[in-house]
Parts: sequence; C-alpha cells; structure tokens
Amino acid sequence: MIMEKGISSVEVLPSKSSQVTAVKVVVKEPETKQTQRGKRVGFVLVHAGAGYHSESKAKEYKHVCKRACQKAIEKLQAGALATDAVTAALIELEDSPFTNAGMGSNLNLLGEIECDASIMDGKSLNFGAVGALSGIKNPVSVANRLLCEGQKGKLSAGRIPPCFLVGEGAFRWAVDHGIPACPPGIMATRFSLAAFKRNKRKLELAEKVETDLIQLKKRRQSSEKGSRVMCRTCGRPSKASDGSRGGDQIELYSLENDSGTLDTVGAVVVDQEGNVAAAVSSGGLALKHPGRVGQAALYGCGCWAENTGAHTPYSTAVSTSGCGEHLVRTILARECSCALQTEDAHQALLETMQNKFIGSPFLANEDGVLGGVIVLRSCRCSAEPELSQEKPTLLVEFLWSHTTESMCVGYMSAQDGKAKTHISRLPPGAVAGQSVAIEGGVCRLESPES
Amino acid sequence: MIMEKGISSVEVLPSKSSQVTAVKVVVKEPETKQTQRGKRVGFVLVHAGAGYHSESKAKEYKHVCKRACQKAIEKLQAGALATDAVTAALIELEDSPFTNAGMGSNLNLLGEIECDASIMDGKSLNFGAVGALSGIKNPVSVANRLLCEGQKGKLSAGRIPPCFLVGEGAFRWAVDHGIPACPPGIMATRFSLAAFKRNKRKLELAEKVETDLIQLKKRRQSSEKGSRVMCRTCGRPSKASDGSRGGDQIELYSLENDSGTLDTVGAVVVDQEGNVAAAVSSGGLALKHPGRVGQAALYGCGCWAENTGAHTPYSTAVSTSGCGEHLVRTILARECSCALQTEDAHQALLETMQNKFIGSPFLANEDGVLGGVIVLRSCRCSAEPELSQEKPTLLVEFLWSHTTESMCVGYMSAQDGKAKTHISRLPPGAVAGQSVAIEGGVCRLESPES
Repeated sequence: MIMEKGISSVEVLPSKSSQVTAVKVVVKEPETKQTQRGKRVGFVLVHAGAGYHSESKAKEYKHVCKRACQKAIEKLQAGALATDAVTAALIELEDSPFTNAGMGSNLNLLGEIECDASIMDGKSLNFGAVGALSGIKNPVSVANRLLCEGQKGKLSAGRIPPCFLVGEGAFRWAVDHGIPACPPGIMATRFSLAAFKRNKRKLELAEKVETDLIQLKKRRQSSEKGSRVMCRTCGRPSKASDGSRGGDQIELYSLENDSGTLDTVGAVVVDQEGNVAAAVSSGGLALKHPGRVGQAALYGCGCWAENTGAHTPYSTAVSTSGCGEHLVRTILARECSCALQTEDAHQALLETMQNKFIGSPFLANEDGVLGGVIVLRSCRCSAEPELSQEKPTLLVEFLWSHTTESMCVGYMSAQDGKAKTHISRLPPGAVAGQSVAIEGGVCRLESPES
Repeated sequence: MIMEKGISSVEVLPSKSSQVTAVKVVVKEPETKQTQRGKRVGFVLVHAGAGYHSESKAKEYKHVCKRACQKAIEKLQAGALATDAVTAALIELEDSPFTNAGMGSNLNLLGEIECDASIMDGKSLNFGAVGALSGIKNPVSVANRLLCEGQKGKLSAGRIPPCFLVGEGAFRWAVDHGIPACPPGIMATRFSLAAFKRNKRKLELAEKVETDLIQLKKRRQSSEKGSRVMCRTCGRPSKASDGSRGGDQIELYSLENDSGTLDTVGAVVVDQEGNVAAAVSSGGLALKHPGRVGQAALYGCGCWAENTGAHTPYSTAVSTSGCGEHLVRTILARECSCALQTEDAHQALLETMQNKFIGSPFLANEDGVLGGVIVLRSCRCSAEPELSQEKPTLLVEFLWSHTTESMCVGYMSAQDGKAKTHISRLPPGAVAGQSVAIEGGVCRLESPES
C-alpha cells in the first residue's frame, strides 16, 4: 500500500465474515496554520474509478485526480457553490483520456461513445441526469444544466421540467441550451480505439467458441432427449442451463478490464456553508449494447447528496463506481447516505458495503460484487475549545471503500496548498468482489476571516 | 364514491396533519365455496392511472382493468409464473386506446410516442426496463424480455447483460430478440392526436404570453437596474425570480389533464407459490421533451417486487402512477415495499404516502404532490382452524392509495369468476396533491387440490 503524507496509522479491523477483510487507514489533515488563499473554504474528494489500476499508469490517475481537486477548490475559493465545484472536478476527470468518462470513454458494440452522468444538490435536493448521451464532450455539464433548469420551476403551460434525458433527445436539449456539440471522432482516443479493436476480436473468438459449443450440444441433445432446461420466464431454451451461455471454456476471451477503460469517475464536495453536492460520470461497460444505461445516470445509484435536515444530523454526499448493474440493484449511493446518519461513519460504511452490497440478496446470484464509493459527511461544531473562542467549524469525515482490486482517489481542502492522491488496494490475499477495503480521514474546516 | 360489491365498511381515519385526509374502505373478499377453475391460484391488482377519471369515461377504464385482471388470471391458471401474469395484464392495459401507455400514449413535443416500462420479479429480484422507446407496441414485453435474458447469466466474453435500455438501442435490441416493430402511426390514436393538437395550441399561446411578459420585464428592468436575480447554480438570469417562467398569467394555458392522457398503468401479482411480480408502463407527460424518462423506467421508482426473505416476513409488490418526477425523487415504489414489512399494512402505506411522499423533503418546493400506488403483500399462514386441517393458505392484503383526484383499479383472484373494478376518489373537500385516499382489502388464497 502506498503511504501518503498525512496518513498516520493503519489498522486492520476485525472481519464480520470470513470472506470479508477490512483495512482502515486513518488520514489526518496536518494541523496547518496556513494563511487562507481565498474567501471561501470547502473540501473535495474525487475518484477515478474502482477497478484495477496498474502501477504503470498510477501516476496518470493520481495526476488527473489532483487536477480535478484543484479545479473544485478554485471554484469554491471563487465563491462558487458545491454544485459548481463538483461539476468543475468532473469536467477535469471527463477530459482525461485515461478515465472511462467523457473523452476516452469505452466504445459500445457499434464503436460509438454513449455516456451517463448525474449530479445531485444537497441543498435543493434537485437532481439532473443524462443517459446514453453521444456527441457532448462533458456529459456532467448537461446533467448540471438540467439540475439548474429544474430549479427554475415549471416550464410554459405548466409543464414539469425534465430531470433525466436520454439519447438523441438529451443531445438536442443540450445543444438548445447552449452546450456545444462535440464533432464525431474527437471523443474516442488512441487508447479507447485500440481497446475496442482488441475487445471486438475477443468477442468474435468467444462467440465462435460459443457457436461451436451450441452445435456440439445440439448434436448431444438430439441423442439424449428430455434433458433440455427451459427458461421459466420466457419459455425459450435456457442458455444458463448450458453453463453461462458458453461456459468456462470462453472465459479465456473475457474483455479487458484495464482500469483506464473500466470505471466511472466522480466527486463529492462540501462548501463553506455546509452544502454538499455529488456527481458521477461514466462511459459504461466496454462493448455494451447501444442504449444501455448504467448507475451513473440513475437516481439513488450513481450519486447522492443531502444537506442536514430535520431527521438527518449530517450532510452527506456519495459517488459510486464499478459494475453499473450491481450498483443499480443495490441503490448503493442512497443506501450509503442513509447509513452515514449513524454515529460511527467508518463502521456504518463498512457494514453497508458488507451487508447491503457484497451480501445483498439482490446480488445473491453474482460471482463477485464489484464496486466502490467515495463518501463524505459533515456537521457544524465548535472547534477544539482550547484553540478557539467558539469559532464555527465544519467537521468533515471522508471515506472511500471498494470491493474491486483498487480505487484511485484524491482529496483537498481549500486550506491546503495541494491535493493528496492515493491508490487504495485490497490487502494481500483478499479476493476482489468478496472483500472490502475501507479508508478515510477527518478534516476540520474553519470559517474564513470576514 | 362508487360502492363496489364486496365493500363492507367505510371508515374515516384521524388525520396526521390538517392538510391530509385519509379514507379507509375495507374490501372483503366474499367467502366463496367456488370450485376452482384451473390448476393454479393467485391474485392480481391492476391500475389504469392515478389522475382524474371523468365519470363519462369511467366505464371504459373499468372495462380495461377488468380485462387486464382476466388476462393475468388466465396466465396463472395456465400455470404461468407471476412475471408472465403481470406482463399479460400490462399488455392488455397498454393496448387500450384510453390509457397513457403503449397504444394511445401521450405524444411528446415533436409529436412522437416514447414509452417507459419496467418489470421486477420478486423471486429472482431481477429487473428489466426500457426508457424513451419508440416503435414497439408493448414496451412491457421488451422489459420482460430484458429481465428474462438477464436471468440467463453473462453474455459471451463475460459481458454483463443489460437490464435497462433506452431509445434507438432499446428498439434495436427488441427487434433483434424477435419482438416485432410497430409501423409508425399505428400507436397514435384519434384521442391522443386530438389532445396533442389542443396541447400544442395551448403551448403556443402560453409561450406567446411568456415572450410578451419577458419583453415587458426587460423594459422595466432597464429602468430599474440592480433588481435582477441570477440563478445561483448556472449564473444565468433566474426565470424563477420572475414568478415561475411567466407566472400565474399563463396558467390559463396549462395542458390538459384528461385521465385518458395523464398516467401510467401497472399491475401487481402473486402466484400460487407466493412469488410476487410488479410492472408499470407509461407514455409519459403530454408534450414532454424527447428523451425524457420518467419513473416507469426507473429502478425503485416505478415498480418493486420482493419475495419474503431472511429479513422480510412478507412478499411485497408495488406499482406506481402519477407525476414521474415526484415518484422518482421519493423512490416511492421501494419506499412502500420497505414500509409494508411492518405489521399494519394499511397504516404503513398511509404513513408512507403522508410522510415520504406528500411530506417528503425531496418535494418541499412542489405546489402539490401527485401520485398513486397499488400494493400487495402476502404471507403463508394456515387457514381459519375451524375450516381446515392445516391446509396451507396464502394471505394477500391489497391496497391502493393516491393523492390525485382519482385512481382506477381492478382486482381478481383465481378463485373469482370475474374481476372487481373501482374508481377511487378523494373524499369531498380534500385537495388533490395534499390529501391521501387509501382503500384496500384482504384475500385468502387456498392451495389447489392436487
């Protein structure tokens, strides 16, 4: 595990289940006496995907996380709200050719890029999302604009403004609202095109093996009649009974899971006033079916942000990453947000990842459950009594957790000179999809001098 | 309120808030000694939308609900599972020109039909959904096929099968999986085309008034500088500060809310084995933006089905209807399902509608919160001891609840000769969007003679 400046202790937590391992890294912000650089304070935590981040590309991932943090903090220092800051971080992450979002996204079966993105504002609780969107360089900017337009009230003739648009309609709406179209061919990069070609070749080989197997089985079945298993829902022959549509024999041809082409990016932000925002953006799975929409576009699944309220002592913000279908079926972002209202944030997140994700009855038939989250929660409190005279302070707890091999994160507060980045990895011996890594820290934000 | 055969009492519940009125109608299944008509038993509850159902069209709505119930029961009697039965009910509801789903759906701004639909299987907890789908007569059949294909395990080369497809990609997938394309122009009906023309005219008038108002305000602003309010998120001039983008002056031109063109349809089913399924289908809002996806396509929002499990004493199934954006932001289907795990189903649903829907902090800025749900929950129990010798029985509790003027429902058990239908209305004096009506009943299903 790579140790970052500021990481003060590593603690192995007792496992709740023999299949689950948890590592806690307590990251403490240095007690800086730095002069504040701007008028505002705040905190940002970003991720460049939960998946597998090779050591060889670690530098690139960390670099883009660092830049994304800086963009968000610049916005906060300029007086922007949390939604603006989180959008700025996402745009930086989308623009990187190394992440699977915006520029350099995975290509679908037809060789096209279709992106999902969403944003949530903890103050208004408004949400904006786009799904299967092509031809726009920064999908998050369309999601943010939908959120913003939704806050303006009803449209003419009493029509309710949309919060979720997909496909060609989403593209048209974006262009009509002044977001420039991106010329075709710009968003695919050298890396994503090369990965597409390799994956297409693997798919062809896998399908050839599958076809051969089906023919072999047909010949067998004609001699051993009566053993055919039908799908109980549609009544057609069940491929599952043949062992996962082709079975283990074609696992050799499984698609690449290079971290650069695997996962979603996201960010969570809290601004000086304690308002939180969260956003997420994804190019989706490699060779996905055109029109497939994953968790990054779906309410409750991709991101969640909720300011403190009558029944919620903490403001919470969550952004997820990983296998879209797993994150959707567990509504993981909202589940984490709800759990974070209990006292011990670390324990709450760990239990959520263990019981509501890996152990979820909604994913009981999955071989491995792959995902990651970044979360923050904040509450107002007075600073340590001996150091202040009741100056209001924002206590921010931030965590990341994943069941994938690794997850790349970055974080920064407006008081910091630069962002910290970290590639979190499962501990040695832990099995991806069955084990949880969890790390995080605490940051205390003082109000700026007026 | 129209009294149906079998309704035995009407009870006004004490209101939790001065704004909320609740009416409870206890519907008791007659204690039939009917011979069973088929091999299987089960129960279905359907709805043809929560909105406003005029008395003049009541007969049509009730008729289609009746047919939908019969289709589902026929499937159950033929030995089909809950997912097949619920799909059969939905196809009947979609095929009616009076409902806003499938045939006769609302037209969008461009005069096209784009449908949303989803289905959930309580046994496998699998989900299938389509959004903004054009050119397919029965969107629910595509959602069901996605669910079925998803149950077969991974695709070739280890690809995860999609559970949610939108737009052109969803259409292509459907056709590739043998679901016939519907020729253009077939799905729009005389009613939906006439409503589109009237709505378009109203929109043009509303927009003309709005343009005039903006020009008037511009002239005013140039003489009273400094009073301009900017949107805090995007920095552009806020239309909200002008009073809802044109304000009260254009409310005269609000779009029609004829029940036939307003709402979603849906169904919930429990089969003999206690497996539940739920489905929902919608043409969406009149003159919606192309690509807009509403609750009918969204996981947790449009429908929910969950068999009894380790932590869930009851099997539950829910289908929602109403204003898509309100149902999405409250994740209402799943919220109802969770609430139904407490002892008193009626009280649990009432509190959910009051506190998690009308009183939801996620809808705090809405003038009125419009929606409806049908729910069922079932558990195994022995029948009344004096009437049986421990013959296993399925106890089914079913309820409908709405904040809209009315909601049309139908229900039937496999033991019944025909379906019962009912148009539930808010009690006199109750305000749509602020009051809750809730009604329902109990049905005991005995296992068939083997």
